[in-house]
This record gives sequence, C-alpha cells and structure tokens, in this order.
Amino acid sequence: STMSRSDEVNKMTENVYKGILDQFNPSLKNFVTMGKHYEKALTGVTVAAKGYFDALVKLGELASDSQGSKELGDTLFQMAEVHRQIQVQLEDVLKLFHSELLSQLEQKLELDIKYLTGTLKKYQSERKSKVESIERCQSQLKKLRRKSQASRHPNKYGDREMQYVELMSRRQGELDSLVAVGYRSALTEERRRYCFLVDRQCSVTKILTNYHCKVRELLSQKLSSWQQSCAQPTKLPERALNLLRHTAPLSSGGAGLAEVLRNAKLGISQPAEQVKPVMDATDWLPSNTQK
Amino acid sequence: STMSRSDEVNKMTENVYKGILDQFNPSLKNFVTMGKHYEKALTGVTVAAKGYFDALVKLGELASDSQGSKELGDTLFQMAEVHRQIQVQLEDVLKLFHSELLSQLEQKLELDIKYLTGTLKKYQSERKSKVESIERCQSQLKKLRRKSQASRHPNKYGDREMQYVELMSRRQGELDSLVAVGYRSALTEERRRYCFLVDRQCSVTKILTNYHCKVRELLSQKLSSWQQSCAQPTKLPERALNLLRHTAPLSSGGAGLAEVLRNAKLGISQPAEQVKPVMDATDWLPSNTQK
Repeated sequence: STMSRSDEVNKMTENVYKGILDQFNPSLKNFVTMGKHYEKALTGVTVAAKGYFDALVKLGELASDSQGSKELGDTLFQMAEVHRQIQVQLEDVLKLFHSELLSQLEQKLELDIKYLTGTLKKYQSERKSKVESIERCQSQLKKLRRKSQASRHPNKYGDREMQYVELMSRRQGELDSLVAVGYRSALTEERRRYCFLVDRQCSVTKILTNYHCKVRELLSQKLSSWQQSCAQPTKLPERALNLLRHTAPLSSGGAGLAEVLRNAKLGISQPAEQVKPVMDATDWLPSNTQK
Repeated sequence: STMSRSDEVNKMTENVYKGILDQFNPSLKNFVTMGKHYEKALTGVTVAAKGYFDALVKLGELASDSQGSKELGDTLFQMAEVHRQIQVQLEDVLKLFHSELLSQLEQKLELDIKYLTGTLKKYQSERKSKVESIERCQSQLKKLRRKSQASRHPNKYGDREMQYVELMSRRQGELDSLVAVGYRSALTEERRRYCFLVDRQCSVTKILTNYHCKVRELLSQKLSSWQQSCAQPTKLPERALNLLRHTAPLSSGGAGLAEVLRNAKLGISQPAEQVKPVMDATDWLPSNTQK
C-alpha cells in the first residue's frame, strides 16, 4: 500500500512534466506566434500612420502658402509632429514588446525540452535506484527468512533480520521522500513557468501603461491652441486684409471696400448678394460652431 | 492703373479657387485615403490582439488545471479580459475616427467641386457685368466728348459729361468693391476648409486622448495584484502541499517528507541533490527576483 501511494505521486509527477512539455510549451509557442502577429499588425500601424501624417503635412504646406490660413498650416504641422512623436513611442513599445516578452519566451522554449527531459530522466533514474535498493533488501530478507526457517537455530538470524527490516523501512522512507520532493520540484518547475509568463506580461503592461500615459500627454498638450486656431473660420487674419488694402484701391468711390475690410476684421460674413452658395457654406464650418 | 489693380486682385481670387480645387481637395482626398489605410491597419491590430489574448486564455486554462499554479490562471484570465476591454475601446475609436473625420471629409469633398465651380462662375459673371457697365459708360462718355468737341456750344454737354464721369467712378468703385469682396470670400472659403479639417482633427485628438486615458486606467487597475501573484515562483500554495500530505505517507520513516513540506511552505528550494538542473532553473524566475 505504501509502495502504491508512492507510485501514485510518481505518476502525478510524471504528468506534471508531461503537461509542461505537451501542453504548456506548445501553447506558449502559439502565444509567441500570436504575439509576433500582434507585433506585425502594430508595425503596420506605424507605417500607415506615417502615410496619414505625411498627407497632413502636405495639407499644412498648402495652408502655409495661403494668405488667409497660414496659422492653420502651423497647427497642421504641429499635429503631424505630435503624431510622429507618438509613432516613435509606439516603435519603442514594439522593440520592448519583442525584447521583454517574445524573445525571452522564445529563448526559454528553445532550451526547455532538453532541460525538462533531463530533469525528469534524472529523477526517474534516482527513483529507480531507490526502488531497486528496496527490492534487493526485500530479496535479502526473504533469503534470510528462508535460511532461518530451514535452520535448527533460527534465533541466530534474528538480529540480522531486524537490521534488514530497519534498512528496508529506511530505504522506503527515502523513496517516499524522493518521490515527494520530485513532485514538489515538478510543481515548482511548472509554477516558475507560469510566474515567468505572468511577470513578462506585467512588464509589458508597465510598458504599455507608460506608453498610453505619454501619448495622452502628447495629445492633450497643444489641443486647446489647436482648437483656438480653427475657432473663427470666417475671420481672416490682419495680414490678408492688409494685402487687400494694399492691392485694392482705397481711394476709389463707394463705402464698399471700407465696409468689406471692417466686416472681415470682425469676422462678419458678407450678405450673400454677390456670391450665393449653391451649397450651404456652413457645411465646411466646424461642427461645434454649427450647433 | 486702377483697372489693372482690380484685375490683379481678380487674378488672385481665381488662383485661390483654383488652389482649393486643384491642390487642397486632391490632397485632402489623399489624406482620407491614407486615413482609410490607417483605419485598416488598426482593424488588423484588433484582429491580431484577439488571437494574442485567446492564446493567453488557453494558457490560463492550463494553469487553472494545475495544483501549484491555479491563481496564476486567474491572473492570466484577468489580463486577457483587460485587453479584451482595450480592444472594445479601440473598436469604438475606429468607429468614431470614421464618422467624425473620414466620412465627413469625404462628404464635403463630393459636393465641393460643384459648389466652388458655381461660386466662382457666379462671381465671374457679376464681375463681367460690372466691367461691361463701365465700358458702356466709357464709350458713352467718349461719344459725348466727341459730340462736345464737334459742337459750337460745348458747354451744353458739360453737365451730362460730369454725370457720366461720376457714374463711371461709382461703377469703378463698385467693381473694386466686388473684386475685394470676391477675394475675401475666396480666402474665407479656403480658410473654412482648413478650419474644418483642423476641427475634425481636434475631434479625433479628443477621442484618442480619451481612449489612451481609459486604456492607461484599465492596464494599471490590477497591475499590483498581478505582480503579487507571480512574486513567489517557488512557493507552492497550501492546497498543493495538502495534496502531497494526503497522498504521500506521513507515517513512513525518515525526516525527509516533513522537511520537504516545511521547506515548501517557506518557499525554500531543496538542495539540488536529487534533481540537478541541466539548465539554470532561475532562468524561468521573474527577472526582478533575479536582479
């Protein structure tokens, strides 16, 4: 009965190793593969983001050439620059995601089959030698008892028999201990692997938390000045009006031009007497001013 | 000279409209296309992230079946759940990115050629009729002066001549004003478009700021409990040791088992007498405990 319980624990130990080799490691390998897909998808985002913000820079350049929208060009440049900085942050995250998680897990996986197979083999051979030692003891004891039964002086064997019983009990205890330690070692090996995975995921979590924090800061830093720059879509800058003053004759008759300039400065739309929109012009106005 | 300055402003006005139609709108169209690529790349991330966190759930299931790592399974489930919530947030961002920016810009672009062409045509025809009115005045004046020079009573035409000079000057003023208003309108049309773009980008910035803020919160919420769950990779839970106690014979000789259990509870590694690692076992330990 004692032997069969020891066998039971031994079986559990072997199952733990088998679980790591046949279940955990392949699942972890799949996890790393999925991580690489994730990494690749995020790399695709940095590429797409570059195209997006290059297009924004192009629009900023056009605005910079305009008399009435120059400062909106500056805003567009700033927006593109902030998002360029965000992409730099994302690229750093990707590098860390690779070095702190994927490559570390891959490295472990590569060595683990050899390590675990070796560990299990070592345990099994040590257990086998203990079992064999007990079996030898048992057969010695049997021999002794046969001799004792056949002898005319059985008392002669009493001490030696007692010694064998004690030795066998000690060896059995050693086997039980070895098997228990083996099981504990197996569970610990397993636990180490899960802890390593969780620890690496915690590291990624910290990296991501840091990233999202920085991005939030970058985005909100200039938002209010960006919002201000587009708050008065019909109010042309002084510069554009000066040009008008310079180019158009102020001396010519009629209150027309003076009024145009005054209204332009105040951001008042001209009555649509001369240029009547075929489409509602406020469609291009910011939605917040429309509401 | 007055006429040529008016022509100059008129040329500038036409160039502003041409700039919007031939430069701004195509660049904006390209920006929308790039935005769609960006959107697609981010959709790819949500798909890849799903695979990644499904793989993490699978590892969590394996851990849940283990005697020594059950609570790490809970941690892995929580991690996967948090990242599922992050992906839901990202999907919301993608929907808003589409509705608040891409589709609004696309809608405007679709109508803008017709609108701007119409606006420019209207302005040009109004300018043309003013110019013609001035030319008619001019030729009337010429005729009058010819008559006056040929007449024996030139004073007879003085009043009418004065009336035509005044009318022509008024018409010239009206033309200057019309051209100035036209230029201002053109610059305003242009500015509205840049403001609309900047405003939509501000809206996207607000959406992204909100997203990154939420993600940061989601990630940091449980981080310390996750870190705690993997802090003791060699300390097996009481449950696993109870099983050992129950399965392995406590009654058997030798201090071995009792010591194993005591050490296991204290998280002390056994001397590597029975299972000597072929690879350094601490490789699977969290890096923070290694340092």
